[in-house]
Amino acid sequence: MTSSTAHPESTTHNPGRGDGEAVGIAILGHGTVGSEVLRLMEEHSDSLAHRIGGRMELRGVAVSDLEKPRLGVSRELLTDDAMTLINRDDVDIVVEVIGGIDYPRRVVLAALKAGKSVVTANKALVAAHADELAAAADAANVDLYFEAAVAAAIPVVGMLRRSLAGDQIERISGIVNGTTNFILDAMESTGAAYGDALAEATRLGYAEADPTADVEGHDAASKAAILASLGFHTRVNFNDVHCEGISKITADDISAASSAGYVIKLLAICERITDAEGNEAVSARVHPTLVPKEHPLASVNESYNAIFVEAEAAGRLMFYGNGAGGAPTASAVLGDMVGAARNKVHGGRAPGENTYANLPVADFGAVHTRYHIDMDVVDRTGVLAELAAKFAVRGISLKTVRQEESGEHSRLIVVTHSALESDLSATVDELTNSPDVKAVNSVIRLF
Amino acid sequence: MTSSTAHPESTTHNPGRGDGEAVGIAILGHGTVGSEVLRLMEEHSDSLAHRIGGRMELRGVAVSDLEKPRLGVSRELLTDDAMTLINRDDVDIVVEVIGGIDYPRRVVLAALKAGKSVVTANKALVAAHADELAAAADAANVDLYFEAAVAAAIPVVGMLRRSLAGDQIERISGIVNGTTNFILDAMESTGAAYGDALAEATRLGYAEADPTADVEGHDAASKAAILASLGFHTRVNFNDVHCEGISKITADDISAASSAGYVIKLLAICERITDAEGNEAVSARVHPTLVPKEHPLASVNESYNAIFVEAEAAGRLMFYGNGAGGAPTASAVLGDMVGAARNKVHGGRAPGENTYANLPVADFGAVHTRYHIDMDVVDRTGVLAELAAKFAVRGISLKTVRQEESGEHSRLIVVTHSALESDLSATVDELTNSPDVKAVNSVIRLF
Repeated sequence: MTSSTAHPESTTHNPGRGDGEAVGIAILGHGTVGSEVLRLMEEHSDSLAHRIGGRMELRGVAVSDLEKPRLGVSRELLTDDAMTLINRDDVDIVVEVIGGIDYPRRVVLAALKAGKSVVTANKALVAAHADELAAAADAANVDLYFEAAVAAAIPVVGMLRRSLAGDQIERISGIVNGTTNFILDAMESTGAAYGDALAEATRLGYAEADPTADVEGHDAASKAAILASLGFHTRVNFNDVHCEGISKITADDISAASSAGYVIKLLAICERITDAEGNEAVSARVHPTLVPKEHPLASVNESYNAIFVEAEAAGRLMFYGNGAGGAPTASAVLGDMVGAARNKVHGGRAPGENTYANLPVADFGAVHTRYHIDMDVVDRTGVLAELAAKFAVRGISLKTVRQEESGEHSRLIVVTHSALESDLSATVDELTNSPDVKAVNSVIRLF
Repeated sequence: MTSSTAHPESTTHNPGRGDGEAVGIAILGHGTVGSEVLRLMEEHSDSLAHRIGGRMELRGVAVSDLEKPRLGVSRELLTDDAMTLINRDDVDIVVEVIGGIDYPRRVVLAALKAGKSVVTANKALVAAHADELAAAADAANVDLYFEAAVAAAIPVVGMLRRSLAGDQIERISGIVNGTTNFILDAMESTGAAYGDALAEATRLGYAEADPTADVEGHDAASKAAILASLGFHTRVNFNDVHCEGISKITADDISAASSAGYVIKLLAICERITDAEGNEAVSARVHPTLVPKEHPLASVNESYNAIFVEAEAAGRLMFYGNGAGGAPTASAVLGDMVGAARNKVHGGRAPGENTYANLPVADFGAVHTRYHIDMDVVDRTGVLAELAAKFAVRGISLKTVRQEESGEHSRLIVVTHSALESDLSATVDELTNSPDVKAVNSVIRLF
C-alpha cells in the first residue's frame, strides 16, 4: 500500500483493540433463539475465543418478565432495562432476538447510535426499516449483521454480501418459509386438503396459532425484500413486494399440477428485469408457483428452505437447509456474533448495506410471468376459438391447451408462454366475466 | 469499545487507506480463469468500485509466453517477469491463476512477503503448503483468499470460515470433482461402461487428456484436505487424505447399486470422530460411496458439485452449483478480490487459517465405515454360515445378506453395519483368500 494514499482520519477506519481482549455481549430477548444462543456461547466458549482472538463475555440479558424462570442464566445477568444494558461501556455487541418491529427498532437504533455493533434475527424489522438501520450503522461505523433474518442457518446473506460480491445476480428464487413448504409438501404427499394440512402443521408446531403471516406470504415477503436489496444493491422494502399466499390452493390444484409434472411451491422471486422502456428494474414477489419436478427446488421437502441463485458468472447455485428453529437460527446469530467480535478485536467492518445501484422497483404488472389456468367452460362448438382469441388479442401465446369432458361442462387447462403480468391478469378477469366460462378454478404462475 | 483496551501497536491492525482510493491488481496467469477474471473486472468495473469503496486498477498480467496473442489485454500490461510485477509499490493484490505447485508457491510466498494480499484458485498449492502460506500471510498481516480452490463458485470456503464460525461442524461430505460425477452419472443413466463414459467425458471437455488426477481422486483429495482444515480448525494436508478413485467401478456395480436403492458417488468425506481411546480426531477420505437415492447428494447430476454439511446447531445444509469452468471459477476469484480490496480500503483482515484445535488426523483404519460386498461363492451347504462367521469373529454385524443362484456359483451380497475400517478391510482380505469365495466382485462403502 502506498502510504501517500492513506487517509488516517477517515471514519471508515476501525482499528480494533488487539488480540486477547474481551468482547462484551448484551442479549435482548430470551426465547427459543436467545436461550439457544446462550447455551452455545457457553458450551463452545473456548473454541469461539480462538476463532475471534478474544473471549466473548456476557454482560446481561434483557427480558420483559424478570419473574419468569430462566434456565441457564444467573439472576444477576438478567435485567428488564434494555436501554441501560445497551449503553454500558463494557458492551460491544448487542444481539436482538426479541421479534416484533416497533420496540426492536427503538433498541437497535439506540444500540447503533451508542456505537455498538448489532446482530439481529429480525426479518420484519430489517425488511421494514433497513434504510434507517443501515444509516445508523454507517454513522457510528459499526457492524449490522442479520444472517438469521433469512432462512436461519442457510448463509444466504453472507453469500450475497461477500461470496458473490464479484458477480452480477440475475435472479434469486427461494423457498423461504418452512410452514408453507410443510403444508404444500403434506398436501402433495398425502392428498390432504389445505385445512387438514394446516391443522397438522399446527399440531406439529410448524405453524403458529395465528398462521396468517406464514400462509398469506407476509413472512416470505419480508425475506424477499431483504434478498432483493442485497442481491441488486437497491433498497426494496416489504411494501414493494407483491405478495400472494397459499390459502386458496386446493388438493385439486396439487394433483392437477402433479399430473402435469409440477409441484406447487410458495416462492419468493427476486429478479433483475428490463422494463418496457428498456431500463433495468428490480422485481420482488411472493406467490404460489408451479415448479417442474426435475428442478432442484421441487425436491425441497417438509419444512426445509432453499435459495436458488442465478448469477452471470457463477451460473446456478442452490443453498438448502433448515430455515427455522431455535438451533439453526442460533447458529446464524452466533456466526454473526463471531464476525462482529472479530472486527472489534482486529479492526475493520463487514460489508454493510450498499444500495448504490438504486434501481427502480417494478410494478408487478410490468413483470413477465407465465400462467397455468384451469377453468370450466360451456360445451359448445366454437368456444375454444373464442376463448383463445381473448389471449391472442393481448399478444399472449399459448404453450399448451388441454380440453377434457367433465359432465355438462368442458374443463379447459391452458398454459401460456411468458407475457406481461398485467396482460395475463386482465385476460383472466375477462375470462372470469365471460358467459362461456362457468368457473375459473385456479390460476397459478409457472416458474 | 473501551479505549483503555485498545492496542494501537498490535500487528493485527490494518487501518486501510480510506474510501475512494484505487487498489492495484496483478494477475498471474492468463488461461481460462485469468481471462474471464479480466473480462468481468472490466465489464463490471463501476459496480465493483461501489462494492469496494474504490476502483480496482489492473497493473499487469504475468504470462509465460509473451508472443501468444492475448485478447482483451493491452500489450503494455503483459509481462513475463512475475516477480517484478508482484513487487511494484502500486500493486496491492496478487491473483494467482496459473496452476501447478512449485512455481505458484514461489510467487505466492514472494507476494505475501512483499505485503500483498493474495487470491488464489489453486487447490493443489493450498492443500500441499497451507501452513507455509498461512504463516507468511500472518507475518505480513495480509489476506490469503482461496474460495475458488474448492468447488469454484459454491461459496463453501466463506461459509466454513465465516457463516458457520459459531457452530461445531460434525461432517462435510462433498461431490467436489465434476469429471468423476459426470462419468458416474453417465454410467448410471446410460448403462455405459467406465471406459466409454470416460471417453465421452473427454470428448465433451469434462475430462483432461490425462484424467488421472480426477479419476483417481487426487483432485478431490486436495479439496478434502482444505475442507477438513477449515471445518475442524486442524491442519490436514493432501498426504493425510485416504484416497480411492472410480476407475475400478463397473457398469455391474452401478446397476447392482441402483436396484438396491443407491447411486455411486465419489465423495470427499471429512469427519470429526472419536478414536478407540475416546479422543477426538479428524478423518478425511475420498472414495466411491453408495448414497441412498433419497439423499440430496444422490440427485446431483452431470458435472455439478455439492457440499453437504452437518453441524451441531445448523443441522443439515447443502450447497450446490457449478464446481468448475472458467466463469464460475472467475466468480469466486472476483468475490475474493472484492473482499481483499475492501480490506485494503477500509482496513481489517479476513479470518485466516486457524488451526487452534490441532486435532490428530486419524488413520483410515480407525474410521467407522460400512461395506457393501458383492462376491461369488461356491454353492455348497454351510458356506453361508462359514463366511458369516468371518464377519462375526471381528464383531462385524451384517445388515442384509442376499444370496442368488448364478450358474455353478452362488452370488452373495452382504451389507454390513458400521464397523472399524481396519476390521472390514481385513475381513475382505480373508474372504478374498478363502477357497469358498470364487471372486470378490466389488467392495463399496456406504454413506
